Amino acid sequence: MKMITGGVCAAKGFKANGIHCGIRHNHSKKDLALIVSDVPATAAAVYTQNLVKGAPLAITKENIANGIAQAVICNSGNANTCNADGPQIARDMCDLVQKATGVLANDVVVASTGVIGQPLNIEPIAKGMDALTAGLSYDGGHAAAEAIMTTDTVSKEVAVEFSLGGKVCRMGGIAKGSGMIHPNMATMLVFITTDAAISREMLQKALSSDITATFNMLSIDGDTSTNDMVTVLANGMAGNDQILSEGEDFTTFMQALNSITVALCRMIAGDGEGATKLLECKTTGADTLEAAKTAAKSVICSSLLKAAMFGADANWGRVLCAIGYSGADVDVNKIDVAFRSNAGTIEVCKNGAGIPFSEELAKKILLEKEIEILVGLGDGPYSASAWGCDLTYDYVKINGDYRT
Amino acid sequence: MKMITGGVCAAKGFKANGIHCGIRHNHSKKDLALIVSDVPATAAAVYTQNLVKGAPLAITKENIANGIAQAVICNSGNANTCNADGPQIARDMCDLVQKATGVLANDVVVASTGVIGQPLNIEPIAKGMDALTAGLSYDGGHAAAEAIMTTDTVSKEVAVEFSLGGKVCRMGGIAKGSGMIHPNMATMLVFITTDAAISREMLQKALSSDITATFNMLSIDGDTSTNDMVTVLANGMAGNDQILSEGEDFTTFMQALNSITVALCRMIAGDGEGATKLLECKTTGADTLEAAKTAAKSVICSSLLKAAMFGADANWGRVLCAIGYSGADVDVNKIDVAFRSNAGTIEVCKNGAGIPFSEELAKKILLEKEIEILVGLGDGPYSASAWGCDLTYDYVKINGDYRT
Repeated sequence: MKMITGGVCAAKGFKANGIHCGIRHNHSKKDLALIVSDVPATAAAVYTQNLVKGAPLAITKENIANGIAQAVICNSGNANTCNADGPQIARDMCDLVQKATGVLANDVVVASTGVIGQPLNIEPIAKGMDALTAGLSYDGGHAAAEAIMTTDTVSKEVAVEFSLGGKVCRMGGIAKGSGMIHPNMATMLVFITTDAAISREMLQKALSSDITATFNMLSIDGDTSTNDMVTVLANGMAGNDQILSEGEDFTTFMQALNSITVALCRMIAGDGEGATKLLECKTTGADTLEAAKTAAKSVICSSLLKAAMFGADANWGRVLCAIGYSGADVDVNKIDVAFRSNAGTIEVCKNGAGIPFSEELAKKILLEKEIEILVGLGDGPYSASAWGCDLTYDYVKINGDYRT
Repeated sequence: MKMITGGVCAAKGFKANGIHCGIRHNHSKKDLALIVSDVPATAAAVYTQNLVKGAPLAITKENIANGIAQAVICNSGNANTCNADGPQIARDMCDLVQKATGVLANDVVVASTGVIGQPLNIEPIAKGMDALTAGLSYDGGHAAAEAIMTTDTVSKEVAVEFSLGGKVCRMGGIAKGSGMIHPNMATMLVFITTDAAISREMLQKALSSDITATFNMLSIDGDTSTNDMVTVLANGMAGNDQILSEGEDFTTFMQALNSITVALCRMIAGDGEGATKLLECKTTGADTLEAAKTAAKSVICSSLLKAAMFGADANWGRVLCAIGYSGADVDVNKIDVAFRSNAGTIEVCKNGAGIPFSEELAKKILLEKEIEILVGLGDGPYSASAWGCDLTYDYVKINGDYRT
């Protein structure tokens, strides 16, 4: 497995593009992305668990019910959520893709991100389709990655190369993270493409399994968007024997998928709204996987800990506190805590009680951009990771000041 | 029922005092509070559900296992939590109360709030006991309220007068809210006193029932402290017939208790760390009490909504979003949202979709200091309230910058 460039166009047979069509007022910001596979692809998706769901999610769900998709269209600037005409607009977007590319409307994954509760005007999208389609190319992944950004400060893409039965396969993904361009909620969107051949059942199984340890362990601010969605399109053009069951190939595929999703999780967390630091909480020694995950996620979600990390304050009491109220079944008298970064590692708590440590070294470690919070929970066999970011003045500014 | 002054000394037979003994470095801040009843009182308490518990909570639990207490001692500046000698120090505090006042050590409620994981030195407390006891008075409630403050910007006390069987009864309380004087977690402590006569079973029943709709519906930042505790001491000196069961007197007592706890909830929420606004989410029309409460609490806990309220932004989409991911069993297509304050009321969402509204009026309403978020969930009979505050730069500053 090696990291390569190309994002969603790294895999064979995927073209992409991103343009400014006019949904966003700022002309320098792209707002419409298109990804097209040369051939119909196997598709899998997971969606937000929020009861309030963006209209595009329902249409995507309908379209890929048969496990097949060939294109992804996604706009930024408007979430097309809580609008009476939302489902129709989402269908119109799919129809526009069919008209412009020949891909069947019901083979289109459609997504939107941006302000909610404001009608999405189809006009700019309709007018932009010619330019969007004309610019589709096998190296257009970056343009697509840019077009789905909202308050993301950097575009997010990653790709890997791996081998299945001697055939070179590639997988790549783009993501948009927690950010809002209007007074609406943050949305996480992830589009992954691969040229590996895999059945729809195994693709869905791989995705559904993977996200429990990746995107579901990611938190920027504890708010779950209405429009979150992760999709994978696998077009089989690598020519490997189709993966139909568990086994070596499926394991390799899962590893490739995990390297994509973990990389995107880290990118999204590190670019959380207002974030100055990427935080990763690693729990080990838990008696159950559930306890390992619950504890790690609670630490990453604690506003108090997030603020402490912003202040480079080795405040391990907040780590214990967050584990204590997490509901995880742990023995608090067995908890060890250490902080680690490129500047070193420092132990601050053993068996649930503080130990003397150098505040100077702790500060040096916590001033780095990527911080690991290492939590030992005992002698059990389970471990987990969760990703997040610090809580900063800018988070409040971004989310409080927009319309003032 | 009428509001009166006096706090924890409003009820007959309760003396209190608060002094600076030296736990805190700032000499102008009191750090040790004592409340003493002239006679042994019936006692009830509820404690944090955090698995990591402050040592004083365990000792208090032991001491009032028999349903009797006569004094409360509480220091600020150190939480006496996650220290190997914590239980011994808490016991020592009770012994000091016995030595200074004659109240039996095992009739003492002991509490601590402040930094965790740093040993609490008993010396300043021991040295301060003479002055603390000498200054006990029937109008010392305010001094006690001041001595339990950490980053609270105002002391919190309230009292009411009511009648049971023709006898005038009084009940009062003091509280400290979400604040920290060191890099530790916030703690909520509430001490309530009354001269009403009530059995321990009915007192505990009243308290345990009340908090489900009051303190358990209060959130500053979603972090549950290790040291949270609410206690009620009822010394019976009002001379009413002791309340032994449900009935008119118990109902009146519950109403008095609720007026105290709601007032303290509002004070704690409005003085949350960095808060500029008190937020109250009122849900109505729910099919179950659980749904009403879950939805209200989720709205109050949403970092996105809290930041929007700081920015006076009528961002109703975040209200829907928070209800959508709350787990509450609601029909999102029936949700109405309005904002209300002293400046007026404005409807912003009907049946789950936005409606046109005046941004100017909305801004005016949301610039007030106390904001109600009114959420209609349908035609059901259940309603609930939750209290919180906005998320501000100062929250981040208070919690991120302490040791930098």
